[in-house]
Amino acid sequence: MMEKDFNLDDFGIYDGISETIVTTNKGWTPNAAPMGIIRKKDKLFIRLFKGSNTYENVLAEKKLVVNITHDPILFVLATFTDLNDSDFDTKAFDGISISSLKEAQCWIAFKCVNSKLTNEAFISELVPIRAHLNKCKIRAPNRGFCGVIEACIHATRYQLTEDEKYLKLIKAYGDIVEKCGGEAEKEAMKLIYEFL
Amino acid sequence: MMEKDFNLDDFGIYDGISETIVTTNKGWTPNAAPMGIIRKKDKLFIRLFKGSNTYENVLAEKKLVVNITHDPILFVLATFTDLNDSDFDTKAFDGISISSLKEAQCWIAFKCVNSKLTNEAFISELVPIRAHLNKCKIRAPNRGFCGVIEACIHATRYQLTEDEKYLKLIKAYGDIVEKCGGEAEKEAMKLIYEFL
Repeated sequence: MMEKDFNLDDFGIYDGISETIVTTNKGWTPNAAPMGIIRKKDKLFIRLFKGSNTYENVLAEKKLVVNITHDPILFVLATFTDLNDSDFDTKAFDGISISSLKEAQCWIAFKCVNSKLTNEAFISELVPIRAHLNKCKIRAPNRGFCGVIEACIHATRYQLTEDEKYLKLIKAYGDIVEKCGGEAEKEAMKLIYEFL
Repeated sequence: MMEKDFNLDDFGIYDGISETIVTTNKGWTPNAAPMGIIRKKDKLFIRLFKGSNTYENVLAEKKLVVNITHDPILFVLATFTDLNDSDFDTKAFDGISISSLKEAQCWIAFKCVNSKLTNEAFISELVPIRAHLNKCKIRAPNRGFCGVIEACIHATRYQLTEDEKYLKLIKAYGDIVEKCGGEAEKEAMKLIYEFL
């Protein structure tokens, strides 16, 4: 269990919505998906929409792992595909199996409390149960990285609605990635176009 | 002077364009402005457009300091105002005075080499001469922070052109900041609207 002086700031989670990759597992089968984690003061919340593997796994186990990463390719692959088993690190702590991403700068495992199930979603408060710091890396803001995140979100919306306005937005962010991104961001954007 | 094993990655500068705040000085008077730093493999470049204080200072001294920060308010204030003297740390090293931002996670001082002056801009390669690491802080990606950076850029373009399309873009990014940003991002966005 977590120590009393656990600080969300130390693990990169600030107020507002943090863009993270949430990992869950069904037995020893891990799953990863990009998710926004909402922080209000010192409380954290998540809203999971019905139908995803993450939703099913969290509903069954009432726990999840939040991974902090700035790897644009990982965000794209977790949006559109099942990551490889070799991307995960799965370990048992106190009888609970926890799957995290090897590539993450850090991860925090949470249990779900005060959960609510609506017709569309599972909404829950998150209480930390274990956390791990892999590496702290300074990274200047890069508009290309932001562009990949935005393009992933609009790509998901496009797949749900087929509304062409999302294609225009993806193209606009693709231009920013082309101008400002590094090799990883450009490769990530290429993958988005391929998955569409 | 820098050691041989200086690594740009350690100071958060990756390939593509890094969004930074560049500090310069005229004697003991420091100046700050947001600038994109271009990295291609292990070389860095900057392009400074005529007419700014940064341009004048760099042209006179052929040096500048790149500060890495994720403080959204600092990006907005450096875009629209002169920062307070108390925001800077100015010190002399080897007879060269170097102004950096106290709030920066790290900074790197560069000298300009292979510079070129065109009708519109000063273009130069940057060679590191000194660097300092203040603190490494993990920070999950936040779409609100990215929104503030984009809104700053469009606000500058709006002030130059008065083209209303930029106001629409600023408003769109303002909506993302309102939804995903923390208190600092929301305050930064409020400042942008005030400065317009």
